[in-house]
Amino acid sequence: MERILSSDVVKHAGKDVLVQGWLHKKRLLGGLNFLVIRDRAGLVQVVAEDEAEVEKLRGMQVGTVLTIEGQAFEEPRAPGGAEIRQPKITVDVSVTDESPIEIDKPLSHKPENLDTLFENRVIGLRNLQEQAIFKVQAAVEEAIRQYLFSQDFTEFNSPKLLPGATEGGAEVFKLDYFGKQATLAQSAQFYKQIMVGVFERVFEVNPTYRAEPSATTRHMTEFITVDVEMGFATFPELLNLLSNLINSAVAEVWKNSENQLKLWDAKQPVLKSEFPVLTMAEIHEKYSKATGTNTVGEKDLRPDEERWICDYAAKELGSEAVFVTEWPASEAKFYHKVDEQNPEFAERFDLLFRGVEIATGSMREHRYDVLIDQLAKKAGGQPEDDGFRYFLMAFKYGMPPHGGFGMGLERLVEKIIGLANIKEATLFPRDINRLAP
Amino acid sequence: MERILSSDVVKHAGKDVLVQGWLHKKRLLGGLNFLVIRDRAGLVQVVAEDEAEVEKLRGMQVGTVLTIEGQAFEEPRAPGGAEIRQPKITVDVSVTDESPIEIDKPLSHKPENLDTLFENRVIGLRNLQEQAIFKVQAAVEEAIRQYLFSQDFTEFNSPKLLPGATEGGAEVFKLDYFGKQATLAQSAQFYKQIMVGVFERVFEVNPTYRAEPSATTRHMTEFITVDVEMGFATFPELLNLLSNLINSAVAEVWKNSENQLKLWDAKQPVLKSEFPVLTMAEIHEKYSKATGTNTVGEKDLRPDEERWICDYAAKELGSEAVFVTEWPASEAKFYHKVDEQNPEFAERFDLLFRGVEIATGSMREHRYDVLIDQLAKKAGGQPEDDGFRYFLMAFKYGMPPHGGFGMGLERLVEKIIGLANIKEATLFPRDINRLAP
Repeated sequence: MERILSSDVVKHAGKDVLVQGWLHKKRLLGGLNFLVIRDRAGLVQVVAEDEAEVEKLRGMQVGTVLTIEGQAFEEPRAPGGAEIRQPKITVDVSVTDESPIEIDKPLSHKPENLDTLFENRVIGLRNLQEQAIFKVQAAVEEAIRQYLFSQDFTEFNSPKLLPGATEGGAEVFKLDYFGKQATLAQSAQFYKQIMVGVFERVFEVNPTYRAEPSATTRHMTEFITVDVEMGFATFPELLNLLSNLINSAVAEVWKNSENQLKLWDAKQPVLKSEFPVLTMAEIHEKYSKATGTNTVGEKDLRPDEERWICDYAAKELGSEAVFVTEWPASEAKFYHKVDEQNPEFAERFDLLFRGVEIATGSMREHRYDVLIDQLAKKAGGQPEDDGFRYFLMAFKYGMPPHGGFGMGLERLVEKIIGLANIKEATLFPRDINRLAP
Repeated sequence: MERILSSDVVKHAGKDVLVQGWLHKKRLLGGLNFLVIRDRAGLVQVVAEDEAEVEKLRGMQVGTVLTIEGQAFEEPRAPGGAEIRQPKITVDVSVTDESPIEIDKPLSHKPENLDTLFENRVIGLRNLQEQAIFKVQAAVEEAIRQYLFSQDFTEFNSPKLLPGATEGGAEVFKLDYFGKQATLAQSAQFYKQIMVGVFERVFEVNPTYRAEPSATTRHMTEFITVDVEMGFATFPELLNLLSNLINSAVAEVWKNSENQLKLWDAKQPVLKSEFPVLTMAEIHEKYSKATGTNTVGEKDLRPDEERWICDYAAKELGSEAVFVTEWPASEAKFYHKVDEQNPEFAERFDLLFRGVEIATGSMREHRYDVLIDQLAKKAGGQPEDDGFRYFLMAFKYGMPPHGGFGMGLERLVEKIIGLANIKEATLFPRDINRLAP
């Protein structure tokens, strides 16, 4: 007999079926015994009465791989609305050790339990709640790709082994590369800009590395960035692109991943079609007035300010996502564009969503001579360094006005689902304390 | 006036249009002057007669960013079947240096010119022939994803920073990780197998690292692997999946990327719906008989044998792709499954396509005790090492029969287009001699 999936059992009511999967749960009550089998489509209940069949499961633990042949019945109280009765059970792979972590009940995500969660990740992921996070992640990733394709963006693959630390700073992993030093990419920044000169509109969904020396709820040493760059674009067009991208991804995921989102009681975000825009000065002012903590004049937002302004935007502006603009030019990176009307500001934005920054972007300085000048002043960089000279080449031979952003995939998924720590939305998280599994 | 793309000029014949892009080619003939403008959609010709307008381009080189307003005319001899006449020209970004590499003519891909090609990659990619390679790469990647989604595979993201060299061997990059040693992933092998325990059918399109100390036409230090793994599968089902995947990708690409493929005179591969299967012994025998070079009894295929058998399969079996099976168990990795009927063989295959191996796969040993045994014997590995113990955990708690493969994205694209060196199909290739751009 051919294998069918758990979700198809209901369609075969009244017929013989064969399912295969993992023993997910077992309740042996003597006369009436309930098994739950998990396969890639979900769960199906099996009711066994024949003692000889049940005997085969003696000592068998959750995870045992089984083939079940039996008769399918409609059963509204069972998962999927069906169950299999009078099963013939075959133990394909026996498991005799008890799972180190619950598989059939939600796992604790309390801060103090996260280490146990990650230590047992390999098995814990078999839990449907954990699976749901990564089904949503895959769905978000696919929705992002499809939206960007619809806007004429081309996907590319850039190397992560680089000759130097392009963004500067100490948080860079270094490695020996046949006797030379290489670094791991802290971003695809230079490549995505170079690729604007080729395809105008480009993106990459790629791993990114930061030798972040502190363990926080917001940082990891390896994470996935959605890098997007758009040529012949203006600052408002960039904000518009990102508003549309998030709206599109959220709509797709709530359409296609409803069951997964329900397992986390995820609430569909309230979003405007164009996210509201607040300047940093406005936020400082509002926050200071409301909380009594004076941040006016500060050159960045405090984490608490990010949370506060998101609450404010949700309540007062009808949007759980909000752009922050007018970042001080003094703090800008050398490739950021300074606002020509207001030279004290860079044409940069952060996108805050549900209390945290999920994307940061800017217009880029596209004029070769100005860029060379900013490189020297801001980064202390030498145009002839391998880490810069190929990047600069793109500008020497003509780059249009352009801008882009990097968005953290795990942060977006964390906030879509309503998790508290970025690592919960990461399959196998990496931080200063964790390099395995 | 709103910008339109070069490809849309023909639809606006008789109307005023505005295009923006890079100066791709310039022929100033005095009275009649021809410009070609490049944007993300392709090329459009501009015919300028007004001396004052043409004067603006004095000293302007290829790459200059221009805005052109003028009247659209049908012109069958021009690219896209249209041209713009009586232009008003605005120089948005001037380029006064001559490009170090041709942009409007095909670039040489002769082995002796590849270094020049890669050194000037940033600008050379603006050449339409070079662009075409990476448009095809993006199309192949998307076709692969969509085929795997259609077969119920879930995409995942695994870390590239690992605690140890999982596949063993010297070709591993090592780095300092906060005082500990980390390595860069040589493959997603362990993670994709672990994920079979979660989603049954999984894949990842991911960067892969090999500290390959020789510069060849087939190897790089960083490349993209399509990692696929399927639970509750048999060896024939695995071959079938890969046959279908390649057939589907080739069909999609020839449907959607025809123009790009034409630029390289790419010939659609002749493929069977199920690729023919030859054992290694059969290939050795045929090759030895045909060439007089005796390889009978050898435990691998020589590169020349791979080329020869592909020619043979194309001519005699009607397929440019061919599976090689019955690999000696003595050479197998510890996670490979030994053929129970013929214990001298591993249930492994290579897929050869147009003369080169583009994928390698196998059934995996899924029984915990046998795997532990093979780990000790084959890899000399300790089950409690961080590099192994999490992997083994998946098996301790139940893994079904499964198998999978890794396919090199750049190799597949190289062979689809008909290039001679894997690096030609790589945006910014990395080998022992090249770490930039």
